[in-house]
Amino acid sequence: MTVTITAFECSPDRGLGLARDTRVRWALEEVGLPYQVRHLTFETMKQPAHLALHPFGQIPTYEDGDTTIFETGAIVFHLAQHHAGLLPEEAHARTRAVTWLFAALNTVEPPILEFANARILERDKPWAAERMPMVEERVHARMRQLAGYLGDTEWLDGPFSAADLMMVSVLQRLKPSGMLDGHPVLAAYVARGEARPAYQRAFEAQLADWRAGSQRAAAP
Amino acid sequence: MTVTITAFECSPDRGLGLARDTRVRWALEEVGLPYQVRHLTFETMKQPAHLALHPFGQIPTYEDGDTTIFETGAIVFHLAQHHAGLLPEEAHARTRAVTWLFAALNTVEPPILEFANARILERDKPWAAERMPMVEERVHARMRQLAGYLGDTEWLDGPFSAADLMMVSVLQRLKPSGMLDGHPVLAAYVARGEARPAYQRAFEAQLADWRAGSQRAAAP
Repeated sequence: MTVTITAFECSPDRGLGLARDTRVRWALEEVGLPYQVRHLTFETMKQPAHLALHPFGQIPTYEDGDTTIFETGAIVFHLAQHHAGLLPEEAHARTRAVTWLFAALNTVEPPILEFANARILERDKPWAAERMPMVEERVHARMRQLAGYLGDTEWLDGPFSAADLMMVSVLQRLKPSGMLDGHPVLAAYVARGEARPAYQRAFEAQLADWRAGSQRAAAP
Repeated sequence: MTVTITAFECSPDRGLGLARDTRVRWALEEVGLPYQVRHLTFETMKQPAHLALHPFGQIPTYEDGDTTIFETGAIVFHLAQHHAGLLPEEAHARTRAVTWLFAALNTVEPPILEFANARILERDKPWAAERMPMVEERVHARMRQLAGYLGDTEWLDGPFSAADLMMVSVLQRLKPSGMLDGHPVLAAYVARGEARPAYQRAFEAQLADWRAGSQRAAAP
């Protein structure tokens, strides 16, 4: 059974690894599953063939035999449930890891998404400069809480898990703005995640895809 | 073993049921587990005793013997995993329900949270009126996709599940603004969720708590 995921033909982040397929590639690399990629453009993402897999017309999706999944958190959780390496075996530790997986996606990521919207989609709006400090403070408040919890521990709760994979990925969205620099505990945590060989392989794979996609797009 | 959750002493939504403890109460009612509530104020939520349970100083939390969980999605998922009634048994159907649970929290809720921030926290800011249509359109775009998927089916995927509990709860945040009225498919879906006896019991319980809390707050 071959795993197939979808990703951008030419990611708008220019290969920085911030598109969500990187999270799924990372999880696949951590559990040692080979995969192939079907590339989509902003046009083909909104066509019926892809909407049948992903009702919101986004990437990534995951296909493995008769299993199809469309939400990044769900794909990573599915891989963690069915393969060793991303969730502890002991029941309480597993519950705590799943808790942090949800916290990354529903408590930490929303203010970061709002900040990314302000920084990119609303960059040229008349309110951009005046509003930005308030949006940044919403992110900083979460970062202070997370750094206070993490302290000098290596990962969120015991060994590296799907929760760390997701939390590091969520925090990476802050890197282009330099905002992570103000939180050295979190910058070091993200660096630990990025140093993992599985992350390196995932990053290189998405970067290679972006290079190939942008060359095709530039071809006459 | 008695289940204990935390909730606001006096919810800022004045008993509309929009605080996240309602989601947990609803799940507890669906699976038929009795529970008790420990009430917190905006002050006690930020004190060490609660931060030891919830690193972000929020409600709700869940305690059951030696199990403690702090994130709403994780609590609802934990209840769904360990009690009948909120997740299908068949593996593929279960994966799809978990997928929609994550989609509610990480694809549908973020633009709704951003809209709620614009509507409440930024109501008096100089950019409020000019910016609002753009924020609303981000929500409407998701609503159109979700309504297109849902069509005239009763629930997201087969029988009612934790995914519907969460999606209905996320959509309820739009009710005070009237925005749901523009999406009759979704308004009807939310109404179906609210008509469930378990939801009615959860709603009444949080409303009774709010009434008692606001009376205590008003006492001389």
